[in-house]
Amino acid sequence: MERFSLNSKTIDSWTLPQLVAGCQAARVRNVALWRELYEGADVADAAALVRAGGLTVTSLCRGGFFPTESADERAARHADNLAAIDECVALGTGVLVLVCGGLPRPAQGGPRGRDLPGSRQQVADAVGALAPSAAARGVRLAVEPLHPVFCADRSVISTLDQALTIAAEHAADVVGVCVDTYHLWWDDAALDRLSTIGERIAAYQVCDWLDPLPDPLLGRGIPGDGVIDFSPWTRAVVSAGYTGPVEVEIFNQAVWDSPGDEVLGTVLERFGELIEPDL
Amino acid sequence: MERFSLNSKTIDSWTLPQLVAGCQAARVRNVALWRELYEGADVADAAALVRAGGLTVTSLCRGGFFPTESADERAARHADNLAAIDECVALGTGVLVLVCGGLPRPAQGGPRGRDLPGSRQQVADAVGALAPSAAARGVRLAVEPLHPVFCADRSVISTLDQALTIAAEHAADVVGVCVDTYHLWWDDAALDRLSTIGERIAAYQVCDWLDPLPDPLLGRGIPGDGVIDFSPWTRAVVSAGYTGPVEVEIFNQAVWDSPGDEVLGTVLERFGELIEPDL
Repeated sequence: MERFSLNSKTIDSWTLPQLVAGCQAARVRNVALWRELYEGADVADAAALVRAGGLTVTSLCRGGFFPTESADERAARHADNLAAIDECVALGTGVLVLVCGGLPRPAQGGPRGRDLPGSRQQVADAVGALAPSAAARGVRLAVEPLHPVFCADRSVISTLDQALTIAAEHAADVVGVCVDTYHLWWDDAALDRLSTIGERIAAYQVCDWLDPLPDPLLGRGIPGDGVIDFSPWTRAVVSAGYTGPVEVEIFNQAVWDSPGDEVLGTVLERFGELIEPDL
Repeated sequence: MERFSLNSKTIDSWTLPQLVAGCQAARVRNVALWRELYEGADVADAAALVRAGGLTVTSLCRGGFFPTESADERAARHADNLAAIDECVALGTGVLVLVCGGLPRPAQGGPRGRDLPGSRQQVADAVGALAPSAAARGVRLAVEPLHPVFCADRSVISTLDQALTIAAEHAADVVGVCVDTYHLWWDDAALDRLSTIGERIAAYQVCDWLDPLPDPLLGRGIPGDGVIDFSPWTRAVVSAGYTGPVEVEIFNQAVWDSPGDEVLGTVLERFGELIEPDL
């Protein structure tokens, strides 16, 4: 299970100390952290806690949310993303996952804009503005295509191709992509292309698609509970030459309402059955 | 408004006689029909009613739902699709829209299968089996890519490319594609390709993506109520050489709960503002 990484969002009820203790109890060595886990506290304290627990941070979630209606908001988003890069350094992780943001909403409220190409250009520009700082600090930006169901409100970057187009403007060790089965499982073109883009894969996340889907945001499944065949995706990532961690990231209210140690037990069992054999 | 066509599902509460009367009152000349409108009755009577109202049927919805777990079910689906082709002939429409079906479920119940490539092959095979009958009766099969959010349960055909791959095995006047903005709006690759595939466009449907989305199935929007910029899509379809009808098809519980004539009035107004200028 050396390549297994527990994304903190999978057990949303755990505080950072609980996460560290829970991972130690289950002999988990890698975690992917969400920034909210240490919000309002000092990231250095969070880093010390994680280090004392013998854990490696495989990625930080999340930067992004780039499209905005005004230059002021753009500057604020840029500053927040720079802060996230600094937090990566403090936590000792080399990967910042970017959820790029949906169509912009006016600061004063009201409906979102409809300029999809312009919003995608804003994402490309914002990644370009961040890349030098990321490179200087040794942090890789991982552009994550989100399922097209989130195109309006969470990420105008919906396909692997769109993410790769943005990444291609930069060195592969500065900007890569985050491959998540939940977001890409329907896309045969992405699967075909995956095995050819090895150096661009900055993170690999697994999560199942439930049927029926309780909710696009909070109805994701533990691998094995849904309809995704993980083998072709894991094999493509491996054949591309990716040797990094495999994160399990689940957003699911029912999972969140279950005891954390039970969830982690199930996740580890499924990982052993459905993911590890293809690594 | 010569190219406007009202998809019967937009005003779900109307019976066929109400639909005919409502269209006459609003001077609408084209309708796209769902088979459920004459279920249990004789299609010839439905056809006579529509004809007497001076209406042209632009397409019939729907054939499809091809992937199955057993040969018996496959045969039953084939027979039902042949019946739909006959109904097209009776109604005087040359287009049968295909909603291709999701991952197959065992006849005895239980979870869906996980073989996505195999299910897509079943769709291709089933379209191939239907094509000679469709050609012989002068009916064109319109493979409709559905939004990837429906990949598990309604259509394993999620992208324009996947639909075109299936269509490409057949003459363009026998198998084409149905382009629906709701399903494709997030896909810049589809928009780019659209203007090059003129002869393959068998139907063009418009529907908006609401934000927030009340529900992927029953939360679709009347054009203008959501985030889609219709102009690039309509212009691409036009520049491809498509000269056929433009159907407005809305699935929305709130719209369905409103008086039909008011809904039709709003739909016509929005069509005039947002679609017609680009035709």
